[in-house]
Amino acid sequence: MSDSLKLYSYYRSSASYRVRLALAYKELNYDYLAVHLLNNGGEQNSPDYVAANPMRQVPTLVDGDLVLSQSLAIYEYLDEKYPNTKRLLPTDTAGRAKVREFCEIINAGIQPLQNLKTLQTLDEYFKPLAAVKMRWMHYWMARGYSALEEKLRMTSGTYSFGNTLTAADLFLYAQIFSSNRFQFSIETYPNMKRVYENIAKLEILEKAHPNQQIDAE
Amino acid sequence: MSDSLKLYSYYRSSASYRVRLALAYKELNYDYLAVHLLNNGGEQNSPDYVAANPMRQVPTLVDGDLVLSQSLAIYEYLDEKYPNTKRLLPTDTAGRAKVREFCEIINAGIQPLQNLKTLQTLDEYFKPLAAVKMRWMHYWMARGYSALEEKLRMTSGTYSFGNTLTAADLFLYAQIFSSNRFQFSIETYPNMKRVYENIAKLEILEKAHPNQQIDAE
Repeated sequence: MSDSLKLYSYYRSSASYRVRLALAYKELNYDYLAVHLLNNGGEQNSPDYVAANPMRQVPTLVDGDLVLSQSLAIYEYLDEKYPNTKRLLPTDTAGRAKVREFCEIINAGIQPLQNLKTLQTLDEYFKPLAAVKMRWMHYWMARGYSALEEKLRMTSGTYSFGNTLTAADLFLYAQIFSSNRFQFSIETYPNMKRVYENIAKLEILEKAHPNQQIDAE
Repeated sequence: MSDSLKLYSYYRSSASYRVRLALAYKELNYDYLAVHLLNNGGEQNSPDYVAANPMRQVPTLVDGDLVLSQSLAIYEYLDEKYPNTKRLLPTDTAGRAKVREFCEIINAGIQPLQNLKTLQTLDEYFKPLAAVKMRWMHYWMARGYSALEEKLRMTSGTYSFGNTLTAADLFLYAQIFSSNRFQFSIETYPNMKRVYENIAKLEILEKAHPNQQIDAE
């Protein structure tokens, strides 16, 4: 186990939440370093933080000399660096591929269209009505969730891929926390709803919840 | 080597280009299946294609029974499935982590804000002036490229990470092809420009170029 893990996080960021879920699932301890994305002009814009993360995003994991951003890259790293913790990715090549695909649909296909900075730039460049902006966000969630639901229809059991928890579940869980904030219902996605409710039962994940963080408001 | 690889691709899609670059670099042969994203109401919306790729995106790789989307998941799969081809990711854990981070900055941090469907929905929901939409796209490219340039300042040699080609180079190369189309100059990013020019010298990659594809217009 590592005694040197540090996580730069914002309690409400879904990418930060993904990484907190992975660390909780693996039972890895870490120091929590809060980065408030709105206060003080956005603490992610401070020179010290930009040196660690030139994209000015959260999360960033620090493990000794390694400073690493991007949630899925962090998942891969944690599986490789701490092989005696619970695995996030399956051990077989095809299974790993499908879990990665599922995570990327969220990571690259859904979340970038609803993250805070994206929404801020929509306001700045296009000055949309709030209701139109929300419809646009819901369009992207509906598009993505329909694809995920179709995947889950083929692969899910208790969890997204059969009955073993994987990275796909943690990405899904953090994503649904985010879409709940934007009043997007998952009622019409029965497999997603079932899997979500099953993940919610896992007590080991509770300390990763946004409301449990020291910077929660 | 596989005789069964098939790639659903659109010549101009940067994510398709990434995968073609990986297949060219690894010298893996494949059948090219063109999916035109604009003709016929978008061929990615045909029922047969949606069954393979419910996100209605390109590329999709087919390898025997495995149907796989998401370019970075495909990269990981190709390295694992074809270990006797040239590697896309380094063999050491920290090195792999940093290459994945670099690729994800492009995959999740830059490209989703300029892909065809995103631009189509901006038009549909916000009806921006073309010049304002272009400024918004350039904002995201500048933001991302500044981060990549800062990474490259620390890590690059001939290529993005030292003197060995990795996934980072192929993601970068396809991304710059895309930003060139949108008249975004890389002149102010000296490390990126040098690496780009070095990658451009690799003859083995030429057959992956958009203009070399059977569906090029």
